[in-house]
Amino acid sequence: MTSARQMHLGLFILGTGSHIAGWRYPGAIDTFQDLGAIQEIARTAERGKFDLIFMGDNLYADPGSHPSYTLRLEPLTMMAALAMSTSRIGLGATASTTYNDPYSVARAFASLDHISKGRAAWNAVTTSNPASGANFGRDLPDHALRYEIADEFVQVVTGLWDGWADDALVADRKTGVYLDPAKLRSINHCGKYFKVKGPLNIGRCPQGRPIVLQAGGSEPGQALAARTADVVFSVTQDIDDAKAAYASVKKRLPAFGRSPDSLTVLPGVMPVVGRTDREARDKLNTLQSYLDETNGLQLLSDRLGQDMTAYDLDGPVPDLPLTEGSQTFARTILAKARREGMTLRDLYNLNSAARGHWVLCGSPVTIADTLEHWFNERAADGFNVMPPYFHEGFEDFVDLVVPILQERGLFRAEYEGETLRDLLGLPRPERA
Amino acid sequence: MTSARQMHLGLFILGTGSHIAGWRYPGAIDTFQDLGAIQEIARTAERGKFDLIFMGDNLYADPGSHPSYTLRLEPLTMMAALAMSTSRIGLGATASTTYNDPYSVARAFASLDHISKGRAAWNAVTTSNPASGANFGRDLPDHALRYEIADEFVQVVTGLWDGWADDALVADRKTGVYLDPAKLRSINHCGKYFKVKGPLNIGRCPQGRPIVLQAGGSEPGQALAARTADVVFSVTQDIDDAKAAYASVKKRLPAFGRSPDSLTVLPGVMPVVGRTDREARDKLNTLQSYLDETNGLQLLSDRLGQDMTAYDLDGPVPDLPLTEGSQTFARTILAKARREGMTLRDLYNLNSAARGHWVLCGSPVTIADTLEHWFNERAADGFNVMPPYFHEGFEDFVDLVVPILQERGLFRAEYEGETLRDLLGLPRPERA
Repeated sequence: MTSARQMHLGLFILGTGSHIAGWRYPGAIDTFQDLGAIQEIARTAERGKFDLIFMGDNLYADPGSHPSYTLRLEPLTMMAALAMSTSRIGLGATASTTYNDPYSVARAFASLDHISKGRAAWNAVTTSNPASGANFGRDLPDHALRYEIADEFVQVVTGLWDGWADDALVADRKTGVYLDPAKLRSINHCGKYFKVKGPLNIGRCPQGRPIVLQAGGSEPGQALAARTADVVFSVTQDIDDAKAAYASVKKRLPAFGRSPDSLTVLPGVMPVVGRTDREARDKLNTLQSYLDETNGLQLLSDRLGQDMTAYDLDGPVPDLPLTEGSQTFARTILAKARREGMTLRDLYNLNSAARGHWVLCGSPVTIADTLEHWFNERAADGFNVMPPYFHEGFEDFVDLVVPILQERGLFRAEYEGETLRDLLGLPRPERA
Repeated sequence: MTSARQMHLGLFILGTGSHIAGWRYPGAIDTFQDLGAIQEIARTAERGKFDLIFMGDNLYADPGSHPSYTLRLEPLTMMAALAMSTSRIGLGATASTTYNDPYSVARAFASLDHISKGRAAWNAVTTSNPASGANFGRDLPDHALRYEIADEFVQVVTGLWDGWADDALVADRKTGVYLDPAKLRSINHCGKYFKVKGPLNIGRCPQGRPIVLQAGGSEPGQALAARTADVVFSVTQDIDDAKAAYASVKKRLPAFGRSPDSLTVLPGVMPVVGRTDREARDKLNTLQSYLDETNGLQLLSDRLGQDMTAYDLDGPVPDLPLTEGSQTFARTILAKARREGMTLRDLYNLNSAARGHWVLCGSPVTIADTLEHWFNERAADGFNVMPPYFHEGFEDFVDLVVPILQERGLFRAEYEGETLRDLLGLPRPERA
């Protein structure tokens, strides 16, 4: 009874888990700097046959708004290390298109792809928090400009990945010919924001090009994803919104000569799994009881791009304009607050639990039913699983929810293929 | 009969080996993109009790001057992967101070230090080839300016590494206190070239600060090393020059409140090991017979910073001014050419063999005697070993030369301590 269409599952990791106070849960890991703990998480994800594990990032330390996210390993070095302790799962690292050079990014992800034998993914983000700018001596560009820069950045990176043919290395001992010069090319890119000659000093990678992930849900974010992404990590609070966003990004693809199947849409979800729905709700209540009001309000200010500490916590959610920060989170959680008549306290509780992402609380069957419903309703091609804490908060999903999805023929029981592209059902691209 | 003063040994890797045509040697590896081969090299280095393995780099592909160096993994991702397949040896990666941001560099090396449990080293280079600029949309600054920028860059990175106290992470489940805010600080650096607030989003690393390597032998290069480096990788062709350079950099240290022992000077040497001196010479002749004149002249042009193809190969070495490229290589090989009355062909042969580094050819005893002599004469604190090819070209050194150094009490027979700092005999620094 296998369904033709198969779900994809990503594991999102950042900090000690997606609940900002999840580290206080009994037995939870309390640091994200310990590679041993992260290796164990990755092994669990591979046991659950996940498509990929990917690490979010930002470029500043903010102990005020989310202390348990403040200390972390750097994503590319972490993923290169994880490549050595995993064998099948995709490995995604975040890198900013605002505070990096395209040559360095293209090169590092190609290297991760070689090291992991075809399992690299680049989560291309524009960086939304102005605090990052202070570490790079350059103010954060406004939202529209960031996406314009990102578009050119991804174009340059893709061009660089295509610089070498697969068979450029000759290494003929007898003749001494090492490379075939006809099998490489410069890109000589001279655009509005970047000037890059190329080629890279690394050969074409196992996947041809590493997988590109994106998370932008705004209008320019969706446009960028439709042109350049293989996977979209979306922010949602509601199935109707998710269906609309799914349809919106998919229908943009044909204009770029792409089939709707060539882009995998994975809404973020924080599952809180109990043996019963009641036990799951109790677990979520326990997690929420750990919240610190100060952190919670700072995190909310962070997400909404404005200082929320001046408002009455038990008053209504005020009317707030979108800012130059992350517009998708602000829009998504404010819409839910209005729909459900939330107080500011409700909103900060919601935002603190999964930092603005969807919280799905219930028994394994409840969770599997909901995910299946979203999948069948074309609200999602699968999910980015954001465990509230580790390891139990993720092991419960892998050991209790995944088997139900597998029994229902919705999700792979074994890995097939070799590369992350194979897992996602995407062909290896020809050189453009 | 152990000597109080102990030699240090580094292994330099880049391309298929330090002889640009070494890949043509029977059985040699012919690609530097295969992590499996690099893991084997690292295991051999660890068997030889080397202090560190480090990877050179540059930021462009130049199939004309040195094809066998053109394709490579990116250094930081490679070293993070090697951290997983080694346990004691130091791991050094090159990163440019001209084409990076200090925040990113500080963060990545701190991460490598966490991942490797205290074995990270940063080879800080200013980048000498103008071809790099074309990949970053910014021309290479002139030599003096590059060093001025590098000086501020290293200062910022060091400050960032000192941003967090070792005990900043509290993670008290009961009180919910995750971090102690008194244990971190911004640097608020606002200098001539960089504006960086800090702190890093990664905690203080196992070594306190990763080891800093530098290779600049010019006046500003030596000044920078004396202020900021733990290890200097020097370029030499002659014991008298090496002694002078050694004395010159060491005598600069007290002005910065540093003891001469706090800086380890390792001249680069390409050993060509035979069972007899004669066999070693034959091996070098075989290697030289693989050279391609076109590559060789392009590589020489590259090292000297000017087009050498117009000169008569069998004529004398012309008088050439220093350029804005790498002045140390140009000065070192031109001095040797003048001393020995070389033709241009001799010079290009010399430069092609080890890309301008010292070639030491002989039986294991000859090589050990020479290294001991240099060490005792204070021309070196040890050596950066640059095998002409892999694996045999390095295994011969580890299996035949290292045991002689160990028997003479000049080099460790077993690893002691935990971190690269321990291997180098350097204390863990206090936060400044």
